[in-house]
Amino acid sequence: MIDFALDEFLEATLREDLGRAGDLTTNAIVPSDRIATAAIVARSALTVSGLAAAGRTFVLLDPTVTVDFRAHDGDTVAAGTVLATVSGSARTLLTAERTALNVLGRLCGVATATHRYVDAIAGTSATIVDTRKTTPGMRALEKAAVRHGGGKNHRFGLDDAILIKDNHVAIAGGIAPAIAAARAHAGHLVKIEIEVDTLAQLDEALAARADIILLDNFAPSDLATAVARTGSAALLEASGGVTLATVRAIAETGVDLISVGALTHSAPSADVALDIAD
Amino acid sequence: MIDFALDEFLEATLREDLGRAGDLTTNAIVPSDRIATAAIVARSALTVSGLAAAGRTFVLLDPTVTVDFRAHDGDTVAAGTVLATVSGSARTLLTAERTALNVLGRLCGVATATHRYVDAIAGTSATIVDTRKTTPGMRALEKAAVRHGGGKNHRFGLDDAILIKDNHVAIAGGIAPAIAAARAHAGHLVKIEIEVDTLAQLDEALAARADIILLDNFAPSDLATAVARTGSAALLEASGGVTLATVRAIAETGVDLISVGALTHSAPSADVALDIAD
Amino acid sequence: MIDFALDEFLEATLREDLGRAGDLTTNAIVPSDRIATAAIVARSALTVSGLAAAGRTFVLLDPTVTVDFRAHDGDTVAAGTVLATVSGSARTLLTAERTALNVLGRLCGVATATHRYVDAIAGTSATIVDTRKTTPGMRALEKAAVRHGGGKNHRFGLDDAILIKDNHVAIAGGIAPAIAAARAHAGHLVKIEIEVDTLAQLDEALAARADIILLDNFAPSDLATAVARTGSAALLEASGGVTLATVRAIAETGVDLISVGALTHSAPSADVALDIAD
Amino acid sequence: MIDFALDEFLEATLREDLGRAGDLTTNAIVPSDRIATAAIVARSALTVSGLAAAGRTFVLLDPTVTVDFRAHDGDTVAAGTVLATVSGSARTLLTAERTALNVLGRLCGVATATHRYVDAIAGTSATIVDTRKTTPGMRALEKAAVRHGGGKNHRFGLDDAILIKDNHVAIAGGIAPAIAAARAHAGHLVKIEIEVDTLAQLDEALAARADIILLDNFAPSDLATAVARTGSAALLEASGGVTLATVRAIAETGVDLISVGALTHSAPSADVALDIAD
Amino acid sequence: MIDFALDEFLEATLREDLGRAGDLTTNAIVPSDRIATAAIVARSALTVSGLAAAGRTFVLLDPTVTVDFRAHDGDTVAAGTVLATVSGSARTLLTAERTALNVLGRLCGVATATHRYVDAIAGTSATIVDTRKTTPGMRALEKAAVRHGGGKNHRFGLDDAILIKDNHVAIAGGIAPAIAAARAHAGHLVKIEIEVDTLAQLDEALAARADIILLDNFAPSDLATAVARTGSAALLEASGGVTLATVRAIAETGVDLISVGALTHSAPSADVALDIAD
Amino acid sequence: MIDFALDEFLEATLREDLGRAGDLTTNAIVPSDRIATAAIVARSALTVSGLAAAGRTFVLLDPTVTVDFRAHDGDTVAAGTVLATVSGSARTLLTAERTALNVLGRLCGVATATHRYVDAIAGTSATIVDTRKTTPGMRALEKAAVRHGGGKNHRFGLDDAILIKDNHVAIAGGIAPAIAAARAHAGHLVKIEIEVDTLAQLDEALAARADIILLDNFAPSDLATAVARTGSAALLEASGGVTLATVRAIAETGVDLISVGALTHSAPSADVALDIAD
Repeated sequence: MIDFALDEFLEATLREDLGRAGDLTTNAIVPSDRIATAAIVARSALTVSGLAAAGRTFVLLDPTVTVDFRAHDGDTVAAGTVLATVSGSARTLLTAERTALNVLGRLCGVATATHRYVDAIAGTSATIVDTRKTTPGMRALEKAAVRHGGGKNHRFGLDDAILIKDNHVAIAGGIAPAIAAARAHAGHLVKIEIEVDTLAQLDEALAARADIILLDNFAPSDLATAVARTGSAALLEASGGVTLATVRAIAETGVDLISVGALTHSAPSADVALDIAD
Repeated sequence: MIDFALDEFLEATLREDLGRAGDLTTNAIVPSDRIATAAIVARSALTVSGLAAAGRTFVLLDPTVTVDFRAHDGDTVAAGTVLATVSGSARTLLTAERTALNVLGRLCGVATATHRYVDAIAGTSATIVDTRKTTPGMRALEKAAVRHGGGKNHRFGLDDAILIKDNHVAIAGGIAPAIAAARAHAGHLVKIEIEVDTLAQLDEALAARADIILLDNFAPSDLATAVARTGSAALLEASGGVTLATVRAIAETGVDLISVGALTHSAPSADVALDIAD
Repeated sequence: MIDFALDEFLEATLREDLGRAGDLTTNAIVPSDRIATAAIVARSALTVSGLAAAGRTFVLLDPTVTVDFRAHDGDTVAAGTVLATVSGSARTLLTAERTALNVLGRLCGVATATHRYVDAIAGTSATIVDTRKTTPGMRALEKAAVRHGGGKNHRFGLDDAILIKDNHVAIAGGIAPAIAAARAHAGHLVKIEIEVDTLAQLDEALAARADIILLDNFAPSDLATAVARTGSAALLEASGGVTLATVRAIAETGVDLISVGALTHSAPSADVALDIAD
Repeated sequence: MIDFALDEFLEATLREDLGRAGDLTTNAIVPSDRIATAAIVARSALTVSGLAAAGRTFVLLDPTVTVDFRAHDGDTVAAGTVLATVSGSARTLLTAERTALNVLGRLCGVATATHRYVDAIAGTSATIVDTRKTTPGMRALEKAAVRHGGGKNHRFGLDDAILIKDNHVAIAGGIAPAIAAARAHAGHLVKIEIEVDTLAQLDEALAARADIILLDNFAPSDLATAVARTGSAALLEASGGVTLATVRAIAETGVDLISVGALTHSAPSADVALDIAD
Repeated sequence: MIDFALDEFLEATLREDLGRAGDLTTNAIVPSDRIATAAIVARSALTVSGLAAAGRTFVLLDPTVTVDFRAHDGDTVAAGTVLATVSGSARTLLTAERTALNVLGRLCGVATATHRYVDAIAGTSATIVDTRKTTPGMRALEKAAVRHGGGKNHRFGLDDAILIKDNHVAIAGGIAPAIAAARAHAGHLVKIEIEVDTLAQLDEALAARADIILLDNFAPSDLATAVARTGSAALLEASGGVTLATVRAIAETGVDLISVGALTHSAPSADVALDIAD
Repeated sequence: MIDFALDEFLEATLREDLGRAGDLTTNAIVPSDRIATAAIVARSALTVSGLAAAGRTFVLLDPTVTVDFRAHDGDTVAAGTVLATVSGSARTLLTAERTALNVLGRLCGVATATHRYVDAIAGTSATIVDTRKTTPGMRALEKAAVRHGGGKNHRFGLDDAILIKDNHVAIAGGIAPAIAAARAHAGHLVKIEIEVDTLAQLDEALAARADIILLDNFAPSDLATAVARTGSAALLEASGGVTLATVRAIAETGVDLISVGALTHSAPSADVALDIAD
């Protein structure tokens, strides 16, 4: 199945690099009939994401190129692993190289960061989820990378769930009226989540029967209290400044979800490269 | 002057977040005639970039919003600094908040990282430059962020200079024929840069009169040798795995340019927030 | 707040009518400086939807036009009601007339049809909801029209909830495995609905703890049985060939939701017109 | 030949349904390598239109899908007729189903309604034509559906003929000056039609040598008078509130054209379905 | 009234010139708050077209710019005439200059060439018309330029009239069947024109009652014969290699229309400039 | 390799001609299964450019068409030369004919004009270069045509070099400060060119070490003086009103570059045609 949004993104990204006049260097130096094969290689250990997109980059630019995938999105691989080989016009390989690697490196970076957080809470009942703090234009890709890393996705956008934040509560005049307003507007498929800052607010949110309650910057002990107090009445999400150093303690409090903005806004790109063989 | 590309980017980013149905939460809870003022705040020390873009995000979504800039792209500010205030419909402020902050945080991240590298080589004759390892769709914005951080820009794309890499040299059959082919194709405005791996290759590149020579992964001592050998015959660019820890030693060799991919591919987002006052 | 999607839709619709050469008739006959005022009038009783969009059509084509709204989306009005007046260049009024009315008539048609269904079940606990059987390109507008008519919205698309249909069940090998697969993939914000054809399947769906169960083409007596058997364990949606003649009996069975495809795929356009005063 | 406008429309329509995250249900439940065949079936008697577009929907989303057409646009078929079969990835069939059917149902609806009007005037010399009261974004498709139903097309837009309406006449100061202004501006390929409300105006229009005269809301007796008075001096179009009940009497007056807005603004969707076989 | 197509064209043209990084020279040298006034000047005698478009170029790039028009599309002016003045940011004036002039120069070139042909046949009954041999992307603008020069427009595209050429006749098996097929498909608003190469074919076309007959590469004497033979039965268009040297003789044969491809495919740009005053 | 920009341009150009309803004539007359072969022929001697684009026009509209190239961009051919043959659906050949020829004719026109200038200066050391006075939307294609004609390219846009014109100098307060400002802003890959009107300004520009100096409207004797005075310190470009009659004398002064706006803004289209064989 064609992923129209992916193709549109990749074409725009290729064109951003090609500019008006195309790859001056390659067109000057590489014969148009030169054929080559290249390996997409993980230079460091990483969790793969965006490999299909990287391969598609070459094919979109040149349908005569073929890609042989040696790994798949979601795999965790060692440094030196060949993720795919790409064969076809040497010009295409060189021209698309940077675009394909920029996409792949960023998405592997997200998946790899996620994987570390997921590993860190192994054995607990918590789930690592992402946020809307994503790279502009790459939300769907980065949310897939989070899944490839073993996490789950929070909202894709402002329109696919209700998440009542402190500013909304302030304007609504309290947690109860905020949830009431939300429920009056929402269709039957829309879940209602609300952010709370204190255990007292948690009680209000429970009384108003929120589906999910976001515990913002709660200390682990307060998280544990919240878990005990909530039981199965709602899902609990811990959020706020979560790091690899703190995530396990948070997970062990029994919260259902731990959201980590850094998965998408601050994960360094993974080190991937294209090695061209003659 | 309208920046068409910026507006297109911001509209696409807003729409990515708005989805089909818009901001369910805000539309349910916040009265349409509610007016508010919000401050865009630096939560940590940072170098500003993207502030104009962040302000534009609100105005593009709602031309009745006004933005009062308290800082400007290129400023380095302390944690807690108010960068701008935004006034208008409370719905607009809440709906555009995440998009504006995602753009601003990322660009401040790039500028701040650049600023650290620039600081680290203060007093040397070297210049920090970026690479094409940028976020897809954000190249022009990120290259501006590098300038805001005190760096300079390398190529914007494949079409605005010739940069002959190892694969091109291999296909051309050597440095001399590669540069000759490039010169035969390039217009009079196009500079020719070539990547070399050894001092022997440097000599070839100098003989072929390259405008700029990229010294890939040279040890500092070899960089110094290259500088001595080149004189003013070409610009020299050091590249490859440059870090904050190594950059000063590199700069002190006397190279003209030091390119750092991490400025754009791995800078963490800066911590920026929107504080809404009643 | 600008509705980017609406503006894009209206511009495309205007351009579909303008073609390459624009309004030949008006440009030939109406002086460019002629000013006029026109009334948008409901020719028959109707529930209003799309009025803001209709007004925006004129302003988008010509920012010097002003619109004075006399009614609002969601109002139910008598035949002859002036919904808005539009003042400005006579050329603009004549050129945009058909586009504005085509949009308005269709959306008022959807709202009016919805209003009739909502009226027909007044006093019951059921809610009228729409389907994805919408006009291509107009889903968000038509779903708003359903809300203006007093209904609620079902899914906006394939990505904002899980709705397991008979073909999915067949491929999954039963209701339980289908729901299990859905739950394994879905994030915590995604509700799971499943379509069942028999009371036996209802029991399976309840056992698998679906959030919502769609009762496809159930007789009213079976609907009542389903309601009794389900209690508050899930929401129940009646669907399939619902008409104004049958909807009240269905609602009185106690189901929560009644989905009606005809609201959007077969509602006739409402009769609206533009009366130009000299 | 590729129909660029059709492909653009279908891709936009598919993307409207797919949203950011795609078909959650199908991706969760249906294996990516599952192959299936489905039949596109007419659930009620109808005149076919949009079948090529419906088939194209699947192929555009997934070029590996094959479509076997059993009927063609323009055919009138009985309930139960298989219009086409579609074979390929089960995921594709399920994901594209609603989009394809929404397009097909609406266009068959237009063609079927047109066919009824055409049938109703069989044996007369009149032709059924459409109007510009079409679905936004679907004008060319709906006008093709009118042809598939046996009708002919009126203007495709404001730029492909002159149609002087009452407001134009009022501004021009009469029928003669309106036609004179039109003729002065129009190229030699542009026909001039004018709307008249009375037989007196008809005489003016004939004196000014309009190519076509639209008789707006004329009683049948006045239509007959108009036909007698006009002879072959112009084409006569009857318009205004035409229904299946009244169309034959209108046609029997001898008018050349009968325009029916309801063909496109109020035809209910035809009942079409996709039956998936294992 | 906004001309959406014009704005889209101008924005694309500006962006073609701005590239990724904008006007490097102006941004480096001209202070952002520098205000200036510039005159758009005709360097040679010309007929104006595209002046509104040229002015719009500046305003589109920068809504704070004001344009004072001193001439209008359709005027014929002497060398040295100031066509408009533009005031605002000096950066805007310099950045938009080339785009505005490229558009204006080309369209004035078309209008000026047309004006010469129109002048050359003054006093005859013939009309100069254009062809579809226009600049890609500029058809509507160039056809307006032809009108500004005193000519009239032939078809805007393949869809707004029938023009049967020799290849169509060959495939149809003759003039009569070609016209019959065209008439069977065309709506009542579509005129039918046919190209003929001989007087014998003219007779066939007249017998088949074509609306317009294109006489391809007829000698003037044959044109005169054709005029005599046709009377008022059809419009006659002379076409093929018409030059300023030959056009009057052709017009004097009494043909109705003379089509000249060179108006749009080969008119040199008119010499226009932007003079910036301090 | 796909040229995305070319495909986008060709699709837009085809759609400009197809309008809403497509090729009325061909669809009415030519059977959909009729196959034909056509030759693209040079009707006059010309230098080829745009041939690949012309062939692509047919394939883009209809992927089942095949093109057999008999010549290539850059060839100079005699009148009557078959440049390519195109085989496939007769409808496709007729529908795409005008678009393909409009593109080809214009680009061959540019290449042919360039070739004449290049020929005129054969044996000198000067190079013919283009300007930014190109057809809106066709800059990259026309700049390729200049290369096909034997010329070289000047700037592709405002962002790929610095070119300081008289207005910039005036605002900067002289040549030295203008170049200093440019150098402070430009990256290391950007060359700096400056326009001078006098030999005194040339001296200033040389003192400020401009990379290239544009000598605007210099008499040949002054050009020769400038060449002597400059030596190898900078490249010299002669510009301003260059014609075929004057270009050789200019070249013989020893300037490096001669820029000719007329190559792109005023070259008449070359005469190319499509001959369809049965």
